[in-house]
Amino acid sequence: MENRDLIEAKRGKEVESYHHMNIAVVDSKGDLLYHLGDPEHKIYARSSMKPLQAIPLVETGAADYYYFSDADLALCTASHNGEPMHTDRVISILKRAGLDDSYLRCGIHNPRWEDTYRKLILEGKEITSLYNNCSGKHSGMLVTAKYMGESTEKYYELEHPVQQRILSVISEVCDYPKSEIAIGVDGCGVPVHALPIKNLAYGFARMAKPNIFDDKRKYAVECITNAMVSAPEMVGGTNRFCTDFMRAGKGRFFGKAGAEGVYCIGDKETGLGIAVKVLDGNGRASSPAAVEVLAQLGLLNNNQLDQLKKWHYPKLFNTRDEVIGELNPIFQLNKTVNA
Amino acid sequence: MENRDLIEAKRGKEVESYHHMNIAVVDSKGDLLYHLGDPEHKIYARSSMKPLQAIPLVETGAADYYYFSDADLALCTASHNGEPMHTDRVISILKRAGLDDSYLRCGIHNPRWEDTYRKLILEGKEITSLYNNCSGKHSGMLVTAKYMGESTEKYYELEHPVQQRILSVISEVCDYPKSEIAIGVDGCGVPVHALPIKNLAYGFARMAKPNIFDDKRKYAVECITNAMVSAPEMVGGTNRFCTDFMRAGKGRFFGKAGAEGVYCIGDKETGLGIAVKVLDGNGRASSPAAVEVLAQLGLLNNNQLDQLKKWHYPKLFNTRDEVIGELNPIFQLNKTVNA
Repeated sequence: MENRDLIEAKRGKEVESYHHMNIAVVDSKGDLLYHLGDPEHKIYARSSMKPLQAIPLVETGAADYYYFSDADLALCTASHNGEPMHTDRVISILKRAGLDDSYLRCGIHNPRWEDTYRKLILEGKEITSLYNNCSGKHSGMLVTAKYMGESTEKYYELEHPVQQRILSVISEVCDYPKSEIAIGVDGCGVPVHALPIKNLAYGFARMAKPNIFDDKRKYAVECITNAMVSAPEMVGGTNRFCTDFMRAGKGRFFGKAGAEGVYCIGDKETGLGIAVKVLDGNGRASSPAAVEVLAQLGLLNNNQLDQLKKWHYPKLFNTRDEVIGELNPIFQLNKTVNA
Repeated sequence: MENRDLIEAKRGKEVESYHHMNIAVVDSKGDLLYHLGDPEHKIYARSSMKPLQAIPLVETGAADYYYFSDADLALCTASHNGEPMHTDRVISILKRAGLDDSYLRCGIHNPRWEDTYRKLILEGKEITSLYNNCSGKHSGMLVTAKYMGESTEKYYELEHPVQQRILSVISEVCDYPKSEIAIGVDGCGVPVHALPIKNLAYGFARMAKPNIFDDKRKYAVECITNAMVSAPEMVGGTNRFCTDFMRAGKGRFFGKAGAEGVYCIGDKETGLGIAVKVLDGNGRASSPAAVEVLAQLGLLNNNQLDQLKKWHYPKLFNTRDEVIGELNPIFQLNKTVNA
């Protein structure tokens, strides 16, 4: 296999399938330092935008008004498992704003966390929006609307001030014209934003070194990234890459996955921002790609690489719990030659 | 997007992700008529080999000895949902051979059929191998071992006569040297076979026109393909492509999916065999690819295309049940120029 732009899914000795990625590594000055494939590729950022989507929650003053803790704020950036620690906190956040989970408009899916799902079945309870992996994000949006005296009914619509503020923040933080951001509908019903990969990386780079922003935004960004790295279990949950990654990162890295193979990282130490898009959309390739990029950039020590091994080279198991293959990143980042 | 070798996953107006395929269309003389990408690509055929894996079950005489009906035989080629119609029949098949589901070594996974899963939880029952989507295939293997007086303990091991017979059948039907077939371990613990895509297509073409085989094999192949098209609900189940496809095919087409984006079809009328491999392994692209190939070859009438529309252009839904995108095959098969 000549093509180096990929991750192999190996079964035994043979490569069974493979994934291509586009990757951008940008510094907080906005320079593209490394790339793979096409860093200009415009992609739906999906849930990787959740940390930015929480900026208005803090900037408006809503988060402080409702006594948001780090864990509360981290949950508002989450694609959570639906474990009790997540759903209990969603209820708590909404209650403080005089709301409850009936206000959530994120739709319904089986909780990611098996035990939660089993418990609901055993107790004959309905699966509600509370268990939706985006219920934290939606809670942040609802609480902001409530605080601002805006309607809590249609907060998910593009025209609603909550979504308009988010759109502006994404445009400003990622330094990409609002008119160029393509809007689609996300898995949970709110607008989803398409930007070039390098702009996503730049947004995360700026969030890693937020002095570039005015005081209000700097404060908001710091609250959010500090919350994510302080309460990583909120952002994903048990056995989730975001959580394990930020735990291993010990406060230095913040990261967020997006559906369809998106992963974004900010490094508070170097101010680097990284954005990965798996071109076929398969999320299984996101974590090997993300860890491999960090490894190639020399940003993880051996201990951290060890901790993240299961995400770097995910094993493929069969139903007899036998290891029958693995995902193996074999790509090489290109150092970008800037004109 | 210049590249025509693909299926687009569209969200709103933008292409979010895309899938590349390798495809071979071979006639029963063995000529490669059409292709996409690399038809020589050697791939793990995965469950698409299940119809061939059932040939020894009939050839040895086991199926007739144990009074196998069409539905029984179809189930032995299945990646079934684990609906009651499937699991009841697995029990019945095994019972006739003096066995029960404790003999199954296919490992455990949550039943694909949600209602079965919920029922097991509510009744406090364990999920056992019975519910594994391969339990029909494993039942066929067990029954054959029992009939032949072979061990029912290690029937899943490559060295066991059951697996050796299967390996020979695959080699002979697909006309590919046994020594060249790469062996890996399948999701359910038995050997899985890697052959070039064009040989998989050739195998299905020959099964579509089995006069090429000796009487014993011809009989076995006809029993199996007739069983699949007579009892398509056994091969997959409710809301499954294999089932819906063979229903629409009205006895003319037999088809079988394999994990990691594999799909194989035989057309009893033209004797054509088709094999599709989605290169990144995403099964969501299998059915759009399969239907699109048949459409381009002019093998489906408008009524059938209509019936299969949801598989041809699968809609993408969000958790609010809104349609937010679709999978859209935009590839064009190449007519193969034979030297």
